[in-house]
Amino acid sequence: MTSPPGLRSEFELIARYFAPLTRGFPGACDLRDDAAVISPASGCELVVKSDVIVGGVDFLPDASAGSIARKALRVNLSDLAAKGAVPRAYLLDLMLPASIGETWLAAFAAALASDQAEYGVHLAGGDMSATPGPVAIAVTVFGETPLGRIIRRFDARAGDGVYVTGTIGDAALGLGVLRDGAAGLADDAAAFLLDRYHLPRPRVGLGPRLVGLATAAIDISDGLVADLRHLCEVSGLSGTIAAAAVPLSEAARAALALDARRRATVLGGGDDYEILFTAPPDSAARVAALARASGVAITAIGHVSAPAAGERPGVRVLDESGQSLQLAAEGWTHFGAHAPG
Amino acid sequence: MTSPPGLRSEFELIARYFAPLTRGFPGACDLRDDAAVISPASGCELVVKSDVIVGGVDFLPDASAGSIARKALRVNLSDLAAKGAVPRAYLLDLMLPASIGETWLAAFAAALASDQAEYGVHLAGGDMSATPGPVAIAVTVFGETPLGRIIRRFDARAGDGVYVTGTIGDAALGLGVLRDGAAGLADDAAAFLLDRYHLPRPRVGLGPRLVGLATAAIDISDGLVADLRHLCEVSGLSGTIAAAAVPLSEAARAALALDARRRATVLGGGDDYEILFTAPPDSAARVAALARASGVAITAIGHVSAPAAGERPGVRVLDESGQSLQLAAEGWTHFGAHAPG
Repeated sequence: MTSPPGLRSEFELIARYFAPLTRGFPGACDLRDDAAVISPASGCELVVKSDVIVGGVDFLPDASAGSIARKALRVNLSDLAAKGAVPRAYLLDLMLPASIGETWLAAFAAALASDQAEYGVHLAGGDMSATPGPVAIAVTVFGETPLGRIIRRFDARAGDGVYVTGTIGDAALGLGVLRDGAAGLADDAAAFLLDRYHLPRPRVGLGPRLVGLATAAIDISDGLVADLRHLCEVSGLSGTIAAAAVPLSEAARAALALDARRRATVLGGGDDYEILFTAPPDSAARVAALARASGVAITAIGHVSAPAAGERPGVRVLDESGQSLQLAAEGWTHFGAHAPG
Repeated sequence: MTSPPGLRSEFELIARYFAPLTRGFPGACDLRDDAAVISPASGCELVVKSDVIVGGVDFLPDASAGSIARKALRVNLSDLAAKGAVPRAYLLDLMLPASIGETWLAAFAAALASDQAEYGVHLAGGDMSATPGPVAIAVTVFGETPLGRIIRRFDARAGDGVYVTGTIGDAALGLGVLRDGAAGLADDAAAFLLDRYHLPRPRVGLGPRLVGLATAAIDISDGLVADLRHLCEVSGLSGTIAAAAVPLSEAARAALALDARRRATVLGGGDDYEILFTAPPDSAARVAALARASGVAITAIGHVSAPAAGERPGVRVLDESGQSLQLAAEGWTHFGAHAPG
């Protein structure tokens, strides 16, 4: 079909908005072809991961082009970080409804350019399609780890300590602010939580430094308890964490002081994009040194152990008196929302 | 959120339908983790390509799960074939509306299993998301070529011959049968054309044998003339083909005999998934030998040349008397359908 008069063709749009994003990645050949070549550096292997986000499911329908672009790229970079991989390139599949115009595309590409510079990664290729549905974006990222050194989810060992980077629960509390208002929170605290919801900050610098230290790792996207459960289930272990040990931002502390029930949001809410990892019991000094060297807080919150006889791998969260907490909402899985039947 | 009672979680669905598709690809770790590791064989590099198909745009809304699965995978394999790459693995991103149930997923996975066996490729990972829109599928394929030997679109040289595999126009004529009925065609001819529309047959076996012979190649998805134009534009050349030389199936000949105006459909329609390539002028004997050895028809249809002074790279189609044909529809680009503004 012919494009309406005055509108650019797919090829012109690619040349204008996306080809510039491939500069610095020779294997993309300036997008003059539709496939890229890539090889890992000597002694390394490629780590590949794909993640899709859909309007109305993974981001709000009124989200800006820039925030959608950043989220699409950063959630994938966060996965790479948890594998200990250094990011190199990504492929971008765009599904765009007819309402999308060049203003949107220009803002989308500008946000990608900014994030590429921040995280040292390049566009390598992709595809565009029209859709009668909402904006949807699939990103495939390529990272590198030394051969055989990728950090997996399933290699935690009984006795390992459980650690998290940064602070937990800010994004979920930010989503609460967005839905229900600040409800007594100071403006700067509310703004901090909202920002943590809107803009993931993947631990790209720290992740590769976990190679040789972490026995297993996962990025926290579904929620602290849900993601620890994933790690424990595939490792065949039980996890125990102390709720009081979970690191909180000042804003999150203020939100909890106003309503203690928000603890369930902190432990069960998603979108932290921090790294949860396990490390051998004698690792405390090395973890502390890494935290100092990287400038990222790392907090010990519990341990993993062999399940008791007859017990299935799972997670226990203990309160201040050592009692198990029951959480109403422990995070969610994307596919759970489908109600397949 | 908790899945409704009786329905499987995302993790159960992955373990049941998708983990079995990764057997034979150790880097996927049975999908117990969400990233795969991959390295090219010694002396090779990876060729990566991503393509997305959307319900109501790239396939009919009532298409079966199996035909959608096959199309999603095969259009990507066709791209690899045109690069001269041997396929190895793929990532699958599924966007599924709430109406999709396990019966659909089971049929979808079964079709992928069958195609994996046919084409020697394995699932390596992916993602699933709910969507309020139609079914959409993004596939990223990984293939291998000897280092530096990928066949690009843009390396055609003035004087090269232009060749196509198989027969051209069957799929577009099949779409016509679907839309307008057989209109006088014999049943077996109509069935042949419909099948060519529904089921791409990527030239996976032939593609890698073009390395060292083809100077440039592209798979024909937008249409013969449109894809030759793409190749010519990025190579900075003009293409000239003879309409009478374009290889036709018996069914296509019958359709043209009934209505000569269908020539525009043959030359301009999409979805052939044959390979269009250029080769040096002295290649006729090597091309003939390859056709014999591979059992795939390969037909010379024209040549490429330096554009005349002041002329832009483009394509001329000559009729039997050597006059230039004007085609009303020379193929389309997916993004053209967006009407971005």
